[in-house]
Amino acid sequence: MSHEPHTSKPLLLPGGFRFAGIAAGIKPTGALDLALAEAPGGASAAALFTSNRVLAAALMVDKEVLRSGGRVRGVLVNSGNANCATGPAGLRACREVCQKTAGRLGASPREVFPSSTGVIGVPFPKDKILAALPALFAGREASLDGARRFAQAIMTTDTRPKLASLRFRCGSARAALLGMAKGAGMIHPSLATMLVYLFTDVGATPAQLERALRQACRRTFNHISVDGDTSTNDTVLLLASGAAGVKLVPDREKDFGAALEGVCASLAAQIVADGEGVQHIVTLKVEGARTEAEAEQVARAIVTSALVKTAWAGADPNWGRILAAAGRSGAALDPASVSIFFGRMPVCRKGVACDFDEPAAVRYLRRREFEVRVDLGRGRASCTYLTCDLTAEYVRINAAYRT
Amino acid sequence: MSHEPHTSKPLLLPGGFRFAGIAAGIKPTGALDLALAEAPGGASAAALFTSNRVLAAALMVDKEVLRSGGRVRGVLVNSGNANCATGPAGLRACREVCQKTAGRLGASPREVFPSSTGVIGVPFPKDKILAALPALFAGREASLDGARRFAQAIMTTDTRPKLASLRFRCGSARAALLGMAKGAGMIHPSLATMLVYLFTDVGATPAQLERALRQACRRTFNHISVDGDTSTNDTVLLLASGAAGVKLVPDREKDFGAALEGVCASLAAQIVADGEGVQHIVTLKVEGARTEAEAEQVARAIVTSALVKTAWAGADPNWGRILAAAGRSGAALDPASVSIFFGRMPVCRKGVACDFDEPAAVRYLRRREFEVRVDLGRGRASCTYLTCDLTAEYVRINAAYRT
Repeated sequence: MSHEPHTSKPLLLPGGFRFAGIAAGIKPTGALDLALAEAPGGASAAALFTSNRVLAAALMVDKEVLRSGGRVRGVLVNSGNANCATGPAGLRACREVCQKTAGRLGASPREVFPSSTGVIGVPFPKDKILAALPALFAGREASLDGARRFAQAIMTTDTRPKLASLRFRCGSARAALLGMAKGAGMIHPSLATMLVYLFTDVGATPAQLERALRQACRRTFNHISVDGDTSTNDTVLLLASGAAGVKLVPDREKDFGAALEGVCASLAAQIVADGEGVQHIVTLKVEGARTEAEAEQVARAIVTSALVKTAWAGADPNWGRILAAAGRSGAALDPASVSIFFGRMPVCRKGVACDFDEPAAVRYLRRREFEVRVDLGRGRASCTYLTCDLTAEYVRINAAYRT
Repeated sequence: MSHEPHTSKPLLLPGGFRFAGIAAGIKPTGALDLALAEAPGGASAAALFTSNRVLAAALMVDKEVLRSGGRVRGVLVNSGNANCATGPAGLRACREVCQKTAGRLGASPREVFPSSTGVIGVPFPKDKILAALPALFAGREASLDGARRFAQAIMTTDTRPKLASLRFRCGSARAALLGMAKGAGMIHPSLATMLVYLFTDVGATPAQLERALRQACRRTFNHISVDGDTSTNDTVLLLASGAAGVKLVPDREKDFGAALEGVCASLAAQIVADGEGVQHIVTLKVEGARTEAEAEQVARAIVTSALVKTAWAGADPNWGRILAAAGRSGAALDPASVSIFFGRMPVCRKGVACDFDEPAAVRYLRRREFEVRVDLGRGRASCTYLTCDLTAEYVRINAAYRT
């Protein structure tokens, strides 16, 4: 499977939503920076947030929205400013923007779900956003063009918008799922933020959505790593409008879950492929673990190792760095049981170097996408991560002075 | 305090040791790559090793040496080959080299302490080392020139040898302590390895040495971070010859401990200053923690953040990345209590941006050495790390293909 964006596949538009994206002047470049998704009839909502103890103002408001019933009428996203570490003033500004948005929607402020992404610790440009609301509302459309403008307005250092969609069966009916994301590669000029918005026209309760969302994220967004940092603003939101006229009943949840995981997997792959300075997309499989938690522990040590990721940047078959990262992961592995493969080529068997064809290994590692497999030889549990290399370009992007 | 090497200070030579370093042809460049330290009258020994589960052959042998009494007659170090992931053949080769060295020393093989550093998974060049032993032994000297050759022969990507020494009082007598180290910046063409050898002429038991060594390492080598990786070969060895004719008794241990920590601190600082591609040396103080363990947890999250370290490379006063790294550290901190300072300049107070002089902050962060202080506002515990930036040069060094 290729992890490049599948631009050839036609996108699907779920019923019950309108989208808009405009330039509100938050980004000095004049690029799109304010996005709206409206559910005119309302939508059930579930969301997952960053585990970072430092929370942006929008996330504090979002948690209140979910606690007060999980119905959403509008999603308002700005890029160019994270509204984080802005104190009580930042929180007040966020609430005011939500209130004004709610007024235009004819909704309660508790039905507006805000998001922000951009630089931390800079006052929230509330007035620019308020001034842009009339134009934003005037531009909303139940169309894929509208969705594409939404996907563009949430970008920061992403080089391309990220969209994915699938149709799924729900009994005899069919419903659609559309997702938009922005990248998790650390975001110049400030922090990484992964924002993901998923829209479906099936009918579902917030509890059903949350169950499905947790399950889908577990093997997609929670198994990608660009640089191991976790932003203060990460959000994954799932909205269900019910406009398809069909409801999720227990025996229909499976098809929905599969579609949700499929869309999330595509968006996750698009995020890694568009990571800052990424030259290689790497599928890391850790197998032969006692438990899935153990496989995760080893995988995380490998995908966060600067040494491993710089070797990948240089197409260097230096598997010793992978073995050493596994060794320091904290997992109780026995080095004499560990085997390592580049694609189908064994390079280390039972802890000892194999006599492998090094030029062939280099050719394999020069591919845009390759696979690394680590077998711990301890059990049958496994996990798969999608990750990337660490290039000099990443450092150049992230070392550039903010202003 | 400057962390640059103090080349002006004259070095001291502890009695009871002879040193040598020669080129055995392990490194293709012809640089020095085989080192010997001899204690003709024997020395008490204590050592600390990597926590990595993957252990090089030398470390397996070293642990046997310490278990069988902690007396050492010779230390044999090679650079250019890690003798790791080389299986039973690598272990046999290490033992054979120790046996031949012991024969020349007139000692038991259990009194020879081997070390290796270099590329992983390449057969150990036993024959080159055996062939070089006569010349190595012929060159040993009880002199600082010998010690300098030892320090050079253990280098890999280090750009300069690292030595430090201090004299300390022991009752009415005086004894000397000399340390040599090689860098922990990840080592092209292979793994990082930090090797540290400490020699003193005081008399002491292995148990006394181990206690002092653990204490000294805790605030020095365990509080530096170049890139967060831990090698399979890391070793810190302390040998005491007793040649000064004075023994460590309990009320004399304090002066010795202070000298040991002083020498370790200097070597640790030299290692960071000579890290791969390092442009900035950063002292990170985490204060106001509930416990020292909590301060450590936050400090480790900050010094291993690629985002924080690339911002430092660019002299970017982007303190939001530091706040976010603290937030994801796992410590139960309250963001609204966290303050951050660059030197004496507050940039974030109680979780909210300060109105600081940004050009002055940039000028401060452009210095070769600067200090970052994070106050968690939760208690009185603290810790200090010495670390560095992550530069494009680091990536270039570590992405270069091995051969």
